[in-house]
Amino acid sequence: MEQTAATGITVQQLEQFRQITGAQYVLTDEETLNEHAHDQTENLHFLPAVVIRPRTAEEISAILKICNEYKIPVTPRGGGTGLSGGALPQLGGVVLTTDRLNSILEIDERNLQVTTEPGVITEVLQNAVKEKNLFYPPDPSSRGSCFIGGNIAENSGGPKAVKYGVVKDYVLNLEVVLPNGDIIWTGCNVLKNSTGYNLTQLVVGSEGTLGIVTKIVLKLIPLPQYDLLMLVPFRNLEQAGEAVSAIFRAGFVPSAMELMEIDALKIVSKMVDSTAVPVTEDTAAHLIIEVDGNNMDVLMAEMEAIGNLLTQYDIGEIYFADDAQQKAELWKLRRRVAEAVKLIGYTIEEDTVVPRAELPALIRGVKQLGLKHDFEVVCYGHAGDGNLHIRIRKEGIPNSYGNEEMNGILRELFELVKGLGGTISGEHGIGLIQKGFMDIVFRDANLHLMRQIKQAFDPNNILNAGKIF
Amino acid sequence: MEQTAATGITVQQLEQFRQITGAQYVLTDEETLNEHAHDQTENLHFLPAVVIRPRTAEEISAILKICNEYKIPVTPRGGGTGLSGGALPQLGGVVLTTDRLNSILEIDERNLQVTTEPGVITEVLQNAVKEKNLFYPPDPSSRGSCFIGGNIAENSGGPKAVKYGVVKDYVLNLEVVLPNGDIIWTGCNVLKNSTGYNLTQLVVGSEGTLGIVTKIVLKLIPLPQYDLLMLVPFRNLEQAGEAVSAIFRAGFVPSAMELMEIDALKIVSKMVDSTAVPVTEDTAAHLIIEVDGNNMDVLMAEMEAIGNLLTQYDIGEIYFADDAQQKAELWKLRRRVAEAVKLIGYTIEEDTVVPRAELPALIRGVKQLGLKHDFEVVCYGHAGDGNLHIRIRKEGIPNSYGNEEMNGILRELFELVKGLGGTISGEHGIGLIQKGFMDIVFRDANLHLMRQIKQAFDPNNILNAGKIF
Repeated sequence: MEQTAATGITVQQLEQFRQITGAQYVLTDEETLNEHAHDQTENLHFLPAVVIRPRTAEEISAILKICNEYKIPVTPRGGGTGLSGGALPQLGGVVLTTDRLNSILEIDERNLQVTTEPGVITEVLQNAVKEKNLFYPPDPSSRGSCFIGGNIAENSGGPKAVKYGVVKDYVLNLEVVLPNGDIIWTGCNVLKNSTGYNLTQLVVGSEGTLGIVTKIVLKLIPLPQYDLLMLVPFRNLEQAGEAVSAIFRAGFVPSAMELMEIDALKIVSKMVDSTAVPVTEDTAAHLIIEVDGNNMDVLMAEMEAIGNLLTQYDIGEIYFADDAQQKAELWKLRRRVAEAVKLIGYTIEEDTVVPRAELPALIRGVKQLGLKHDFEVVCYGHAGDGNLHIRIRKEGIPNSYGNEEMNGILRELFELVKGLGGTISGEHGIGLIQKGFMDIVFRDANLHLMRQIKQAFDPNNILNAGKIF
Repeated sequence: MEQTAATGITVQQLEQFRQITGAQYVLTDEETLNEHAHDQTENLHFLPAVVIRPRTAEEISAILKICNEYKIPVTPRGGGTGLSGGALPQLGGVVLTTDRLNSILEIDERNLQVTTEPGVITEVLQNAVKEKNLFYPPDPSSRGSCFIGGNIAENSGGPKAVKYGVVKDYVLNLEVVLPNGDIIWTGCNVLKNSTGYNLTQLVVGSEGTLGIVTKIVLKLIPLPQYDLLMLVPFRNLEQAGEAVSAIFRAGFVPSAMELMEIDALKIVSKMVDSTAVPVTEDTAAHLIIEVDGNNMDVLMAEMEAIGNLLTQYDIGEIYFADDAQQKAELWKLRRRVAEAVKLIGYTIEEDTVVPRAELPALIRGVKQLGLKHDFEVVCYGHAGDGNLHIRIRKEGIPNSYGNEEMNGILRELFELVKGLGGTISGEHGIGLIQKGFMDIVFRDANLHLMRQIKQAFDPNNILNAGKIF
């Protein structure tokens, strides 16, 4: 059979795909292939042979049947905002994008649930349920462009996770197309379920390796009516880390508890041309602390008590966001940090997570590693969860993937994380760039079980092959 | 080789077990075997060949290696309070009880976590963390005698689940002995984790079929300082069900929202000789509603608002529990319902769960089924979660297991539940008695995946074989 040059997909197979979706949704032009050759991970670029944009689970089923028969690699893709290379088609083959499965199917106000397709942008979903006075809390920084399906694949978190939990805590049920084309629902639209193995939670966070999610049922909660936001400058980065666990130990559960090192703030403030936060020379880091609820007096009292607690540390003047605009400005700074630091060369991002109280030790260790190996580093992230994003800039090394020196450094970093009781990824996934480090945190027996599970779902290893393991 | 009569366990194998645990922990006397022949499920009774009481993961590993080599059935057992037959040794063989793994290993106040062995009684664990002002919410009715390990196996819930979630929402990491004797940790002691497939969530709710849990790391939260409890009598059972979803839709999230049909209340009041709740002739059911938090004024206002909301229904006088003793009395009545109704012949309990707003339809359907098939039925349970326990009494049929007529009736019940968007078990598990109904709620493709997962963990099918599937 005639084949396209790079990848072993035949002209006949392309024609079959066209018959399934319509010819306009099977794309092989250079511009489209290039667009789907990267996500937000480092500076990596892998061309697929073809990009397919199906509309329904049935179309996806038909496509997968063909790919399964001919063992064609399939890389599922959401919004392309991933940071671990989960959507990179490093084996060529098919990129299957879910961008046309973009309808919110039902907001069930009686049962506080929403059923959605995977290609809906997370913020669009959040706003749609907010109009009904309902709340879907998980809110990755990329929520303005990431897809809810991608959030399921990576088990995303975001600032609100500290009070409200991560994606896995809201997923009730998933419609999934299996690699052999079978379409199943993993569970049931109920709040409690002890009926068989939890296939739903197995698919959440499986990074597109077990099946392609085509419908999602999420639990919603009543929307809190008020929130308050403050910014606390610390003169010592490690003390900021210590303060985090002190706040929880005192019985407070903020709805966000973010850490931003001063360099990160400087860089993002410059990029978005903001002077919202005055950068004083003696500040090492800020904590962004938010509380939410339905009683403003209670929230004011909580904020005051947290403020008082923090006076035991070496802090500067606490800044309270007075109105919606000031809050939005602060959140914009926090949300755009990753983009800003990447722009100026901090291309390598790690997603470490440790038990909350080990955060100071992690920060200290990271800084020492930077000195030892001569790289620049800025830290920021979801301190309340112990989830620290570490951005690295090292002359001449734009990617960790494929770079032996940087992989040696990262191995040291992850050994440190492991030693503190932590693990490699809190919310970004393992994908392509971190799979070489799985042996640090898992025994062979664990990895064997995971591979066997992969084998059970995908015996021909067509779905996102080469990711995670 | 010489064999014990019933089960194929040889004298030599018994001797090997004795060398692992010490002879006094390998028990074959009639009394012990009888004690371990039943749990709280119906009136079922299956004798094991031997009961082994190991102390450590290493001892369990050594025992499982022998059982795996000789394909000896192993039934893991916690507190023996299960309601789906998960701990019944219907194939004989070894009952492996975790009652000697009964230490709370560490309460980590810095990170709000507890590490415990599986044989700790749930209420003991709750009280131990409460002393540190910390809270572990899942609280099955049997919490005074069930083991935390059994709660993991069944993904238990309890009254607080409606606000705080079920067991799965608190499990961070598990030490598990696999059937081949390997000992693994499933995950990591962190609050967010996107590192590989979620083996932790796969083991939670797997009913002892995938491995034996030997250490458990649970997330804790700050202990709420106050709660308020009220009891609302409804003249119409279905209206009580309607009120449940109205309360959530209005934005309230009670910390408990229990339903008790009047017959259940009468029966349990009689058993414990309580007049705490006056039984008036025109009452059909009660809702028990609890709110909790850290601000008493806010809680009072919430209770008042919920009370006002309920005046739209045909309710009697609302009863507020004034002090700790009255609250304890009310909870005692609720917690002991299952025991009370079983005592007078309601031996068959189902654990249906539907989306919350479908509760009235479920209650109506159950009552119609009772009339159609001539059985008595009382309903109670965790209405806020849509989780309805249905107790059945039918002349001459003490067990559903093995009874064709009752299984036909239950099939109708579960078809009804499925039609309402629900499933078979919300918190008790499938175990032995409900496995015949899995085809109602799952497609072949789902069951195939579950069996493949079982096969990956337990290729010789020694662990709790014949359960779930």
